[in-house]
Amino acid sequence: MTQRLRLNKNADRRLKAGHLWIYSNEVDTKETPLQNFTGGETAIIEASNGKALGVAYVNPHSLICARVMSRDPSMRLDRSLFVHRFNQALALRERLFDKPFYRLIHGEGDLLPGLVIDRFGDVLVVQLNTAGMQALSEEIVDALEKVFKPDVIVFRNDTGGRLQEGLEANVEVAKGTLPDDVLIEENGVRFVVPVLDGQKTGWFFDHRTNREWLNRQVAGKRVLDVFSYVGGWGVQAAASGASSVLCVDSSGPALSQVARNAELNGLHEQVAIGEGDAFEALAALKADGEEFDVVILDPPAFIKKRKDIPSGERAYARLNREAMRLLGRDGLLLSASCSMHLAPERLMEVVRSSVRHQDRHGQVIFQGHQAGDHPVHPAIPETSYLKALGVRVFRD
Amino acid sequence: MTQRLRLNKNADRRLKAGHLWIYSNEVDTKETPLQNFTGGETAIIEASNGKALGVAYVNPHSLICARVMSRDPSMRLDRSLFVHRFNQALALRERLFDKPFYRLIHGEGDLLPGLVIDRFGDVLVVQLNTAGMQALSEEIVDALEKVFKPDVIVFRNDTGGRLQEGLEANVEVAKGTLPDDVLIEENGVRFVVPVLDGQKTGWFFDHRTNREWLNRQVAGKRVLDVFSYVGGWGVQAAASGASSVLCVDSSGPALSQVARNAELNGLHEQVAIGEGDAFEALAALKADGEEFDVVILDPPAFIKKRKDIPSGERAYARLNREAMRLLGRDGLLLSASCSMHLAPERLMEVVRSSVRHQDRHGQVIFQGHQAGDHPVHPAIPETSYLKALGVRVFRD
Repeated sequence: MTQRLRLNKNADRRLKAGHLWIYSNEVDTKETPLQNFTGGETAIIEASNGKALGVAYVNPHSLICARVMSRDPSMRLDRSLFVHRFNQALALRERLFDKPFYRLIHGEGDLLPGLVIDRFGDVLVVQLNTAGMQALSEEIVDALEKVFKPDVIVFRNDTGGRLQEGLEANVEVAKGTLPDDVLIEENGVRFVVPVLDGQKTGWFFDHRTNREWLNRQVAGKRVLDVFSYVGGWGVQAAASGASSVLCVDSSGPALSQVARNAELNGLHEQVAIGEGDAFEALAALKADGEEFDVVILDPPAFIKKRKDIPSGERAYARLNREAMRLLGRDGLLLSASCSMHLAPERLMEVVRSSVRHQDRHGQVIFQGHQAGDHPVHPAIPETSYLKALGVRVFRD
Repeated sequence: MTQRLRLNKNADRRLKAGHLWIYSNEVDTKETPLQNFTGGETAIIEASNGKALGVAYVNPHSLICARVMSRDPSMRLDRSLFVHRFNQALALRERLFDKPFYRLIHGEGDLLPGLVIDRFGDVLVVQLNTAGMQALSEEIVDALEKVFKPDVIVFRNDTGGRLQEGLEANVEVAKGTLPDDVLIEENGVRFVVPVLDGQKTGWFFDHRTNREWLNRQVAGKRVLDVFSYVGGWGVQAAASGASSVLCVDSSGPALSQVARNAELNGLHEQVAIGEGDAFEALAALKADGEEFDVVILDPPAFIKKRKDIPSGERAYARLNREAMRLLGRDGLLLSASCSMHLAPERLMEVVRSSVRHQDRHGQVIFQGHQAGDHPVHPAIPETSYLKALGVRVFRD
């Protein structure tokens, strides 16, 4: 029989507002000790007066000790719930996109806390980020089979989130055989995606609409793509008519993929690669007198935890300053941040201070966010994490 | 000789950060009494230590008593400054758009505080929102002549900003003869713009990119456009394949223009109009059992001043709730706000509470802002005012 997890008085407010998380200090541990639960166990959440609020899964060892899977306490966490949610998610993606390349499940944003699935055609790459989702992995695979009949299912269970949940890392092909190349198309440009050994699931669909905006700005321009990874921005810029693109990354394998992706689109002459630390590369380019019309900054998250905000903001500021120095007289900076802890107005502040630092002027002509296949849950600010500012930088 | 306006100690901080405004309580009025200045007079701004910081125009009767026109204290506020700024502004717009229909000058965002110009092809509609810009109107017209050689220049000097500056309202055709129809194209759809008697300059270019996003979502859908004005959203939705569009507005003349604009694009069969107060219309539609797939809410600013934030937020919340009630099982709400005082996260909160109020679920799949011809000045938060959320609203 399903155990109940009782909340402290007033600790139900966040849930009533629509949020899906319960923190361990909100549990009435006298009534319902957390140690009575195993990692991933299902529980009925109840308010301090005993009223059932929904069904969740529990991890007694995590700060977020439970995540609500349904507001209907009678809902069973079984294959049919996943089938239902997958169909809901699919309906959204099919409305947004005409090809099967997208984030299929965006965790809480799709009412499936802790579950991330990216779809690369017939290849599904799954991240089970919580003990609860790990415990439900069979139901998840069964439901994926029923709804998508994929050729391949890959688990990329090597995420930071799993560590916090006390889960081990593992990467495996759970169904089928990976083809030599996993191919996608984004904004009309083709890419090979390294699903097994790339970053995260292998591809970052979240910037699709931001790239789409940038693609319109680069015809005839000299473009620098810093933290290029496999060339999502840079190769699309080349395909959109950039006169030259330099992709800089610290990863040799990622840069090989850039070259491969450029080749795939017949763009090898426009796209150059440079291996190195971003800050060092920017300094070296400046020392060489290089100049660009467009610089793209899409760094990894500099702020992973709240306590890293001050040092992280300094890192973003330094990066943006150094990048702006490489811009010509009337240039465009695309400055992105995927740090949920960096508020949009703080990225604006990074841009402001960088512009002032060089006594230039700035016009923010684009404020972008994550694409629609990364839905934001309006009650869960944590689900909105991506920012991209398009900044015209000029001398008066 | 140009008078100097001296700031109090430390009152130069905002300017040094890049902002362009000086508040009257920041002036060292013993040293440089504000009453020594006439409305619109040019002044050199100096720090408390006498260091010149830039050149501004002054209005002794306004809370914002001076606005900086250049950080170079030797700059003269003459035709050639405007020619230079107009050319800078034009270069940006010509990069963004392939047709001459856009906001040409966005005040502070284009380093021309208090000046707004919308371009409808060969017709320029100008708003002089401050005493300073009013005093410079001849230089402005001369510079417009030199850079654009427009057929027509219209002053729409009937703005709220002018009232605060102690300026009178006037609307006049300052050059040329207005054609019977002023025509524009936005996102491939044609519109007639009522430049003399419409709202503001006659058209709201700021939502262009938000409409572009929505246009992709409406094929085959039943669309309700509340606060439709002349049909910017609704007629574009019809042109993008909506099965039916109902435009609701309280203005009969605006609705006549909706019909006209629908006709102009051969869409009169798809676009219906309904005159009335938005809240009453929403209630009446609900009472009639009407249902829509997409509801667009683009209300006028409910929050004009900081003190109106609580009542304004309540009005947005009520509007969003009532609109959501008209959505079918899996609907889309486009919820906009042009109130600078409504922070983006507060519009998200409006959406959150509306969704919860009806025990539905919401996914924010789009976060839009003003288009690039309304550049945000990174040091001036007041220049970023427009929000548009695309929210999928569904029952689990």
